Amino acid sequence: MRKGDTNDNLNRIDFAKGNGLIPAIIQDYYSNKVLMLGYMNKKSLSLTIKTKLVHFWSRSRNKIWLKGEESGNKIIVKNIKLDCDMDTILILGELTGSSACHTGNESCFFKKII
Amino acid sequence: MRKGDTNDNLNRIDFAKGNGLIPAIIQDYYSNKVLMLGYMNKKSLSLTIKTKLVHFWSRSRNKIWLKGEESGNKIIVKNIKLDCDMDTILILGELTGSSACHTGNESCFFKKII
Repeated sequence: MRKGDTNDNLNRIDFAKGNGLIPAIIQDYYSNKVLMLGYMNKKSLSLTIKTKLVHFWSRSRNKIWLKGEESGNKIIVKNIKLDCDMDTILILGELTGSSACHTGNESCFFKKII
Repeated sequence: MRKGDTNDNLNRIDFAKGNGLIPAIIQDYYSNKVLMLGYMNKKSLSLTIKTKLVHFWSRSRNKIWLKGEESGNKIIVKNIKLDCDMDTILILGELTGSSACHTGNESCFFKKII
């Protein structure tokens, strides 16, 4: 991979499709468990890359949200990948606490449908 | 888990927040690789549950899309989980072909950002 490629990918992200937001899937770097999905705007993604800590855009509070700011359960970024149509990202990360979910569950996906 | 719980979870899905659509993360049941993210409306989710094959709502073509209908790369559903705030689902599935992505890559997440 050439040096320029990752920046090119960053600049090509399609924020417009989701009215300025893209979904960000968070997967545990060690267990591969899918932990949660949040939304990011350009600024929260840029903070995430700069600080290596996951920052979302909170749709309910309408502001940047450092994941774990209150709970202490932050997520340290290991790598970020963009999908083929450039409107979703996948973040492999490490939990600083024992849970990603505000309910205390490790993952937010704990309600069985089938 | 009581018999009624999974139906209760199904009925509680919040489609309204995403204007009738929820994001559905597809993860490989065997490798735990995150393969793709698509969107589902109530009908495509119901078809997915009924047929055990992933059906999305195509936002570009504005219609139900049986994943793999043209490529042959269908996804057989193993289980479906809903997240804590009931607006995102995670599907563990088995690929019938070698790739989930229309580019031929196994996963749609192959563009490195960091």
